Amino acid sequence: MNLPSGFRYGAVYAGIRKVERNDLALIVSDAAASAAAVFTTNRVQAAPVLVGKAHLEATGGRARAVLVNAGNANCATRTGMKVAEATSRAAARILKVRPEEILPSSTGVIGVELDRTLIEKALPKLAARLSTDAFDEAADAILTTDTVRKTASTCGPGFVVAGMTKGSGMIHPGMATTLAFVMTDAAIAPGALRKHLRVAVEGSYNRLSVDGDMSTNDTLAVLANGASGTDITSRNAAAFQAALDEVCQSLARQIARDGEGASHFVEIEVSGGKNDGEAARVARAIANSPLVKTAIAGADANWGRILCAAGYSGVNFDPGKTSIRLQKTLVCRNGLAARYDEPALIEKLKSRDVSIQVSLGSGNGKATFWTCDLTHGYIDINGSYRT
Amino acid sequence: MNLPSGFRYGAVYAGIRKVERNDLALIVSDAAASAAAVFTTNRVQAAPVLVGKAHLEATGGRARAVLVNAGNANCATRTGMKVAEATSRAAARILKVRPEEILPSSTGVIGVELDRTLIEKALPKLAARLSTDAFDEAADAILTTDTVRKTASTCGPGFVVAGMTKGSGMIHPGMATTLAFVMTDAAIAPGALRKHLRVAVEGSYNRLSVDGDMSTNDTLAVLANGASGTDITSRNAAAFQAALDEVCQSLARQIARDGEGASHFVEIEVSGGKNDGEAARVARAIANSPLVKTAIAGADANWGRILCAAGYSGVNFDPGKTSIRLQKTLVCRNGLAARYDEPALIEKLKSRDVSIQVSLGSGNGKATFWTCDLTHGYIDINGSYRT
Repeated sequence: MNLPSGFRYGAVYAGIRKVERNDLALIVSDAAASAAAVFTTNRVQAAPVLVGKAHLEATGGRARAVLVNAGNANCATRTGMKVAEATSRAAARILKVRPEEILPSSTGVIGVELDRTLIEKALPKLAARLSTDAFDEAADAILTTDTVRKTASTCGPGFVVAGMTKGSGMIHPGMATTLAFVMTDAAIAPGALRKHLRVAVEGSYNRLSVDGDMSTNDTLAVLANGASGTDITSRNAAAFQAALDEVCQSLARQIARDGEGASHFVEIEVSGGKNDGEAARVARAIANSPLVKTAIAGADANWGRILCAAGYSGVNFDPGKTSIRLQKTLVCRNGLAARYDEPALIEKLKSRDVSIQVSLGSGNGKATFWTCDLTHGYIDINGSYRT
Repeated sequence: MNLPSGFRYGAVYAGIRKVERNDLALIVSDAAASAAAVFTTNRVQAAPVLVGKAHLEATGGRARAVLVNAGNANCATRTGMKVAEATSRAAARILKVRPEEILPSSTGVIGVELDRTLIEKALPKLAARLSTDAFDEAADAILTTDTVRKTASTCGPGFVVAGMTKGSGMIHPGMATTLAFVMTDAAIAPGALRKHLRVAVEGSYNRLSVDGDMSTNDTLAVLANGASGTDITSRNAAAFQAALDEVCQSLARQIARDGEGASHFVEIEVSGGKNDGEAARVARAIANSPLVKTAIAGADANWGRILCAAGYSGVNFDPGKTSIRLQKTLVCRNGLAARYDEPALIEKLKSRDVSIQVSLGSGNGKATFWTCDLTHGYIDINGSYRT
């Protein structure tokens, strides 16, 4: 995997998780980096989200490091703000940077006090372990119920973009995401980086749904340290956007693919909307429908539920012009059952990857969403998350 | 169970369901009744919904009978309108009433042609079976994945209100419901009946969520035939509203209690909203959260998920003033963990009935919602509904 220059990574077990598995990670840029982030829009925001916003504000969009823990969301706790601030200060001291240059981040259970001393004690060991190739170790440390590591990287002309993310439940379009950290060695000003990030999020994390829940901690942060020497200007801005899009889309798709308990990855493509926004609303309703998701789990070609979900999306379309394809097989033409080989389609629906294509027949608007099916596994994972 | 005067009921197996179980029911008023109905707001509407609306329009809110089948939704089918119209005509012929006085209704799979001859052939036998005390048989015939019959009745001063309904999945606040038929022997004009129905629905079926999906067939119809001789006037309108509310709320609660695969019935009471609408939005977000619903399934006192769902409801409240009670036990005070006996609470959460109370601390608005937990059973039922 290609990694951007000028970043070091590290992970350690600080004792926050009940099981002994790395739960604290650092991502450090050798030089001050431009930084931009998108945070949850939940009214309840975890302390690290509030502190991270304040730090970016204070620095005008510069950062040196991301300090992230799993096992505790540091949300709805008495000491939350103090913990996020104190652990930022502790990391800053060791890295010899300003506390505002640290972006703290947390994921895990809500409402349980996070013991800052666990992080403070683990930091020296973590800092000593920092290395340019511990990217995967850091990516592993931020996972919670994920079953696989989620990373992506790509090369642009003269720069590299690489990212890591975590799923798996509580993911909903319309806000940032779960946790994602994207690093690049391109040189770009904070304001321009923010704009590129917004575009990338709109086409990736905002097109993702696992269960319709939205976390209190969702954060997607990008650090651009310029170590490649390649400046992003109007000449190569499109290439930079394309690389950022590619990494964010890959990460978002990996989250859907590893949705809690998922046995199928589902790509929903809606075309023929009056505009892209309408197509996205239809795609989102289908992606969030528990009835569609359980049908996919059961390899059931129940296209009526897809039409039904489109029907309550709030978009005013004509069912009589709507067609639906499952695994590229036309199952519904102009709102009515098409003729197809059902046993053959059921076989195709047993594939890990499922494609749903809906054509609304009322314009050129289109949108793609990613989700997963709803299985027993989701319930097993979430019925006993804390216990 | 008290039943209103002047209604007869019947049920028969017409061969629409694959298994031999009554699938066709008639509810007949001896005299022309005032009728009002609330239908799905889904953009995709089943043929019987369209025909039912047209019939109510044509008669100015009068009806003689409801003809309802289970096993096929008569939705997204080539012949749907013809089937709904022809079967209404056939029922009208046998009952010696006008076709517009029949309200057709269907529930079941979408996108499969409904064979009208099955209904036409079964109608003479069904009509011959009509009796004043076959209420339960009719209530049984309209069920699909329900595990129990759902009926309710109450007496007002000089009149009776009784209703039957079916669940179990695809129920979402913000539209009518699944199928529900309420009969009363009070005498009331169609316009007044419509107003009473709207109030009753707002406080019952619109406060109900099983999986957030919304059906193409949802219908709640009320027939008032005046057989009791009791006129509803300004003097007893409140008593009539109270009786209608009681029956609709009982039916809605029974649906939540029998949600597909449900092992817990959940009542969510939100208070302290700026107004009732805000409280309802918070309650709805909690009721629809898969993470809350799986935690309830696992008897997990995970109040952080409740706070989190409130946080993404779109309502602007202060988490620092928010308190949460589970089974009346204070688990979150002013946005922070309260001290409570967790093992004792977990024991209480194993009860079939779960109470969630959220106080937002910003006003006098309040709302109650009903839902159920999310279990393996839901997935088993819906992963193989058609097969």
